[in-house]
Amino acid sequence: MITHLLSAADLSPEQAVEVLDTAEQIENSLAGREIKKLPTLRGRTVVNLFYEDSTRTRISFELAAKRLSADVINFSAKGSSVTKGESLKDTALTLQAMGADAVVIRHSASGSPHRLAQWVEGSVVNAGDGTHEHPTQALLDAFTMRKRTGRGPGDDLAGLNVTIVGDVLHSRVARSNVLLLDTLGANVTLVAPPTLLPVGTESWPVKVSYDLDAALPKSDVVMMLRVQRERMNASFFPTEREYSRRYGLDMARVGALGPDAIVMHPGPMNRGMEIASDVADSARSTIVEQVANGVSVRMAVLYLLLGGKA
Amino acid sequence: MITHLLSAADLSPEQAVEVLDTAEQIENSLAGREIKKLPTLRGRTVVNLFYEDSTRTRISFELAAKRLSADVINFSAKGSSVTKGESLKDTALTLQAMGADAVVIRHSASGSPHRLAQWVEGSVVNAGDGTHEHPTQALLDAFTMRKRTGRGPGDDLAGLNVTIVGDVLHSRVARSNVLLLDTLGANVTLVAPPTLLPVGTESWPVKVSYDLDAALPKSDVVMMLRVQRERMNASFFPTEREYSRRYGLDMARVGALGPDAIVMHPGPMNRGMEIASDVADSARSTIVEQVANGVSVRMAVLYLLLGGKA
Amino acid sequence: MITHLLSAADLSPEQAVEVLDTAEQIENSLAGREIKKLPTLRGRTVVNLFYEDSTRTRISFELAAKRLSADVINFSAKGSSVTKGESLKDTALTLQAMGADAVVIRHSASGSPHRLAQWVEGSVVNAGDGTHEHPTQALLDAFTMRKRTGRGPGDDLAGLNVTIVGDVLHSRVARSNVLLLDTLGANVTLVAPPTLLPVGTESWPVKVSYDLDAALPKSDVVMMLRVQRERMNASFFPTEREYSRRYGLDMARVGALGPDAIVMHPGPMNRGMEIASDVADSARSTIVEQVANGVSVRMAVLYLLLGGKA
Repeated sequence: MITHLLSAADLSPEQAVEVLDTAEQIENSLAGREIKKLPTLRGRTVVNLFYEDSTRTRISFELAAKRLSADVINFSAKGSSVTKGESLKDTALTLQAMGADAVVIRHSASGSPHRLAQWVEGSVVNAGDGTHEHPTQALLDAFTMRKRTGRGPGDDLAGLNVTIVGDVLHSRVARSNVLLLDTLGANVTLVAPPTLLPVGTESWPVKVSYDLDAALPKSDVVMMLRVQRERMNASFFPTEREYSRRYGLDMARVGALGPDAIVMHPGPMNRGMEIASDVADSARSTIVEQVANGVSVRMAVLYLLLGGKA
Repeated sequence: MITHLLSAADLSPEQAVEVLDTAEQIENSLAGREIKKLPTLRGRTVVNLFYEDSTRTRISFELAAKRLSADVINFSAKGSSVTKGESLKDTALTLQAMGADAVVIRHSASGSPHRLAQWVEGSVVNAGDGTHEHPTQALLDAFTMRKRTGRGPGDDLAGLNVTIVGDVLHSRVARSNVLLLDTLGANVTLVAPPTLLPVGTESWPVKVSYDLDAALPKSDVVMMLRVQRERMNASFFPTEREYSRRYGLDMARVGALGPDAIVMHPGPMNRGMEIASDVADSARSTIVEQVANGVSVRMAVLYLLLGGKA
Repeated sequence: MITHLLSAADLSPEQAVEVLDTAEQIENSLAGREIKKLPTLRGRTVVNLFYEDSTRTRISFELAAKRLSADVINFSAKGSSVTKGESLKDTALTLQAMGADAVVIRHSASGSPHRLAQWVEGSVVNAGDGTHEHPTQALLDAFTMRKRTGRGPGDDLAGLNVTIVGDVLHSRVARSNVLLLDTLGANVTLVAPPTLLPVGTESWPVKVSYDLDAALPKSDVVMMLRVQRERMNASFFPTEREYSRRYGLDMARVGALGPDAIVMHPGPMNRGMEIASDVADSARSTIVEQVANGVSVRMAVLYLLLGGKA
């Protein structure tokens, strides 16, 4: 297995499937137990090093580590020695010296996890770096797709048609999903306003479309992205209503999907913006399952990185 | 037993006594152990979901859960996806999906815990919602009264004369105490300036008085409330000195109490305002015991809600 | 053993050596174990009461307590009942009542740990009080010196020549080191600009010099202090360049050291200011070891204070 999980591209097809299989084994193992914990990582230390707020992701990793019986240290960089001007390198050496077996890092700067990995002996997990990558989100999404499309242990996602819709430009979720879905054999279509597509998608292993309604009937999976208004300025699109009308998923559009197609969203949602509230709460929606699967997949990642044998 | 603890009114007399009896059993059980923990909730997850700062209450619940061997996740809503506009409902569904067995919620909006309880399968404990309720505070107060007035296992508080003094208007502690003390058979008198009494106390199961000196000789218990200046504007009362003179408890007033009467305060205190410092530190004061009893009562609540059999 | 660790001066020579010996025993004991935890403090509660941010120190104590199997409560005074005006005394009584076995306190006011110790039955550990003391830092420094100078169990630091350089005025690290190094028999020289030496060093058990280059050849240990610009105003020294030229440790100056001399720094560093980056990362530097030793020494302190028998 790999030492770090920095990018979804770090995983070979076999390794990606191994993560999903391990997550499934962990779920099965816990389902049969009265006490929902495994002793696997007793005595190991997992540090959540968060330079940006992300309560959801931090809690998901914290729960994953605790259910494997690891000790968890939460390090919020706000109000830390970072504010005394300490470099990421010195923070890394400090955590290393304290015996961190894994460092889960969220940082606003793309590439921070890669630099961290050069300095520590423990495993580094990228929990989101700027607009760059968020590989465990891609893994939990793939795990959700595999479960919901009748696939099982050992399977990849060959031939699955996945449409990713919305603010691709600012989305590390989209980037990691494109990489992992390609590795797993899925066919990816990006649908976005031209202003919200990054430069260079021509070289990505995807089709690009500007027409959501044309893409829906062919989709097995529709993944709606959060519109990250906090990262935008007004020039990106005229109004919320206009965005919602052209790229939002409402019940009328859901009607165009095939009978078994599913709707995904990484959360947190802007209900009424990129996704209508009734769509989010419908039976097609996997949004809550994605959250649950996130804990399982992160348990699998920590287990595999910290030396478990799957 | 009930599923949630949202209001002190949720508890029947039998259930309220059961919580107090369970707290006492837990204390006895721990007293006999070298290692001050019980394995009861191993593998269970308790989330402290705090939308308002309250270090005292958060720590009390955190300790209670840890002494029952549960895993505890602290979720401070400041700097969370809440700031990205996530609704309480989506936060609830997320915690639910992550496998939270209990959510302890502190929120500035009255009724938030009730709404949360509609969305999650786990147990919800109200740790204070606006000026509305704080039921575990009422339970720890009742537990303290029962211990200090010669009552024991199985007993309620029938016939006990409790005087609650001060800023009733802004006090969730007062509201929950009135409800629980009525359930347990105590006689409650509220003493407050007219501007600090809520509208509608005529229909509460209490007597109301504006004269502290008249109420003291008949009181077995005097509960002083924190003056919540942060919630007030200047019109509520003229000066601190005036408040203290009319509604503060000093040693002179303590002299008017019966020999076994006790003095309570939920903390944090404004020493010199609603309570004189020497009164707070006197042998009649149960203020420190209340804090200790808080951990025991919260252990009992978590134990009973999460499926223990008392 | 002592009850609290408030000052490095609290320790007799025998007690100081006992802490170092215990840290070494703990390291040896963990080295032989697959699971890097000791069950010693199961069921005990350690509270980190931090009125100032210090992620490094807080994490070091948190890890130390968790590796001894204690439950850890992090209490950041920001946004706590402190902001509702609660006094340190009432916070102390609250933590006491909740069953805290040890309180680790960081506070901006010198002497706060001493006051805390008057009010609680549990053990108090000073994790830094203003510009006053930081005794566990001195212990980890002494532990590092003992290891790196060929000494071993039972040994003190008799005859070791230690030069402490820089901003002594604002440094609790310097103050605690001077006290402990004197206890352990080392010879201490302070080198600092006159404006950064506290009044009264004439009565300290140290030599004082203003000439770093003269002090280096005689030093077995050079301890560089962090320049605490956040505590200074402009009158303390003209420019960073001037400070660095006269009191900074660069490779040229390192060349003047004896072959076995070591370079220490408590962190976080101002690389390029008091210490050159290549010096910090050189083989003589013990900076990373100091961090690792910090966890071991704090385990030893908690173990000895909370009643273990060494």
